Amino acid sequence: MKIEILCVGTEILLGDIVNTNAQFIAKEIAALGMESYHQSVVGDNPKRLKDSLSIAFSRADIVIMTGGLGPTYDDLTKETAAEFFGRSMYMHTPSLERIEIFFKKIGRDMTENNKKQAMMPEGASIFENHNGTAPGLAVRGKLIDHPEWGEKIAILLPGPPKEMAPMFRESVVPYLAALSEQVFISHEIHLFGIGESAVEAELIDMMETMTNPTIAPYAKEGEVLVRVTASAENCEKAEEIIKPTIDTIKARLGQYIYGVDVGSLQNALVQLLREKGLTIATAESCTGGLIAKRITDIPGSSEVFGMGAVCYANEIKTKLLGVSEETLRMYGAVSHQTAREMAEGARRVSGADLAVSTTGIAGPGGGTTEKPVGLVYVGVSTPHGCETFELRLARGYSADRERIRWSAASNAISLATNAVKKLEK
Amino acid sequence: MKIEILCVGTEILLGDIVNTNAQFIAKEIAALGMESYHQSVVGDNPKRLKDSLSIAFSRADIVIMTGGLGPTYDDLTKETAAEFFGRSMYMHTPSLERIEIFFKKIGRDMTENNKKQAMMPEGASIFENHNGTAPGLAVRGKLIDHPEWGEKIAILLPGPPKEMAPMFRESVVPYLAALSEQVFISHEIHLFGIGESAVEAELIDMMETMTNPTIAPYAKEGEVLVRVTASAENCEKAEEIIKPTIDTIKARLGQYIYGVDVGSLQNALVQLLREKGLTIATAESCTGGLIAKRITDIPGSSEVFGMGAVCYANEIKTKLLGVSEETLRMYGAVSHQTAREMAEGARRVSGADLAVSTTGIAGPGGGTTEKPVGLVYVGVSTPHGCETFELRLARGYSADRERIRWSAASNAISLATNAVKKLEK
Repeated sequence: MKIEILCVGTEILLGDIVNTNAQFIAKEIAALGMESYHQSVVGDNPKRLKDSLSIAFSRADIVIMTGGLGPTYDDLTKETAAEFFGRSMYMHTPSLERIEIFFKKIGRDMTENNKKQAMMPEGASIFENHNGTAPGLAVRGKLIDHPEWGEKIAILLPGPPKEMAPMFRESVVPYLAALSEQVFISHEIHLFGIGESAVEAELIDMMETMTNPTIAPYAKEGEVLVRVTASAENCEKAEEIIKPTIDTIKARLGQYIYGVDVGSLQNALVQLLREKGLTIATAESCTGGLIAKRITDIPGSSEVFGMGAVCYANEIKTKLLGVSEETLRMYGAVSHQTAREMAEGARRVSGADLAVSTTGIAGPGGGTTEKPVGLVYVGVSTPHGCETFELRLARGYSADRERIRWSAASNAISLATNAVKKLEK
Repeated sequence: MKIEILCVGTEILLGDIVNTNAQFIAKEIAALGMESYHQSVVGDNPKRLKDSLSIAFSRADIVIMTGGLGPTYDDLTKETAAEFFGRSMYMHTPSLERIEIFFKKIGRDMTENNKKQAMMPEGASIFENHNGTAPGLAVRGKLIDHPEWGEKIAILLPGPPKEMAPMFRESVVPYLAALSEQVFISHEIHLFGIGESAVEAELIDMMETMTNPTIAPYAKEGEVLVRVTASAENCEKAEEIIKPTIDTIKARLGQYIYGVDVGSLQNALVQLLREKGLTIATAESCTGGLIAKRITDIPGSSEVFGMGAVCYANEIKTKLLGVSEETLRMYGAVSHQTAREMAEGARRVSGADLAVSTTGIAGPGGGTTEKPVGLVYVGVSTPHGCETFELRLARGYSADRERIRWSAASNAISLATNAVKKLEK
């Protein structure tokens, strides 16, 4: 089955937003083992939308569209798709009720044009939207102008990624999987502290020869993710096929793996702390709150995180965490010693089981020959003592403030996770 | 002149990379006042590339392509484009020399296939690549298969964004500007506290009737940005044309405008603090470090920011900031009173000129009928006293943890900025 992606939205054409929907869908399609040769973007214009959809149907069996499902007059994806299949529109009562409930819940009046979002082409499969008002849908059949092209499928999804992505995973993946009579199972192995090309070098023999499961490494925000995907007639069989491959990858790259299907470094840390009933505190200089922010991104993090100190100024390091003025004078704020006293101070003040600290030079200013931009110290204090680590983060493309801060925070979270592994309540 | 963007690369089709090139080029084109109705992506496949380019030429005057300029056999963008114009390829000696110098500089042997990167269609304009080996180029003329379509232009650029983006600004913008004999100037007006549709309602008369300058509002991360773009024969004239429109927008929406061309809320705050020589501290509960993180995202923020306290646990609010246990017991952590004592405590402990605090329920858990998810209190303490604000941020689409935290932080930064406006050192 050939799939094509057609994203509808003038805001993409104007470059106001990056088309992350296309990438998300492309990746999901690839994981399902389906082929995609074209992606297109078109604006909210009836004629151009129609022309683009016609071109897409001429090349592909399935066209996945995003955007243009809103309540206003220029949202016309649904009507345009229905026209191709010669379907009339009807009011889909369950969707209307969901939209009415949504408006009641947020305490706003539902305007008349919102009803448009519940209008559906006859015979469409409807996908519920759990994160907004516009339902998604799939229409399947022959095109009235080109019945000779055979059966075609249009899948229509809302434009906002926060609505589209969950709907894709919840509804579209099963819909597509049902077409192929195969199930697809993926697991994601998360690695930190190794680059994508080094991971590829370790796995290239498997990547080149294996077809089921398939192995694909991805670089993501300074980490690497290896996705292993298997297909089989049912989930159990697929899991059976996957298991030995994951074991092999663990054997080869175990020291860099921080989890399977764990989402993110901070999630792995928070879940581990919860399992062990331990708590953590943070003391940040150069990362400026980013570690605390990433930990508190995780729902339920309040169980394991009580205090974060952002000590940008030296006198605050002393005042909040008790870093000694002598240490700051003798070794400077960016030093093993300061990182140590920050971590120890944060653990003492917060009463947490462990504490992690960062102090460094994020740039672009503030670097010297001795202490260049990208030099960061991390401290990890536990009841067994305090370890400190020196990082050099300004290599290659990483030499900008945002990447240095992100990478320093990732390293600190990773080092804290390693320390938690050795702790018991 | 209609422009179309065609990105070539199997890695985009597989979802391995986000197509940021399309967005970058789209934005640049829009700023030049040129029209773009389609974007497409196709893989490194000769037939499909040819078909896609043919479709693009049938719709647009100028097709900008990225990718496929590399040294390997599957890089065929240049050869394919040359074929459309009926041009043969020749060795462009200055490009070859540049490539040879590049390899000498990095101390590697230049392989034979790298010479391919210096082969150019006859009559092409060549764009130097200052960040890699593959030069860019433009071919202009009639297509041999469709001379009736009139004069067409193909602009070919390397795929890596770090090579493409500087080449676009250095070479393509002047090339395109020369075609139109006009300069384009844009200014961005930043608004907070008002939705995109409300901004549109206020400006719809201007948006519908004005052609130079043009006005376009965009929603972005809970804020609204209004872009005003004018064209004229020179920059001064364009600025003259823009000014009255910006003044009118300021008169209509002034209370929501936090700056023109200022980038972000946090940047506006940091710049204002620097101008006034004032300092700020933060005390965060529900935003968990996000405000500190956003402030310290700005280079040079250490001049105005010394301390941030992330007080997730009640006892830490008391310990670090002196929030009274009685206040916490009587009113709860999520209250005007706690927000006030947090802000006052942060200002006292840090010695900063002002302090901003947040305490609220970010969800998904922790909400009650009385204090639902999305309820957030913000405190702003200055030498003139402390103001507190109640926010309800779980309306409609905002009802997820990440959005509530982002919105709470944005509101806090905005409220702090308003307070700074009234302060003098």
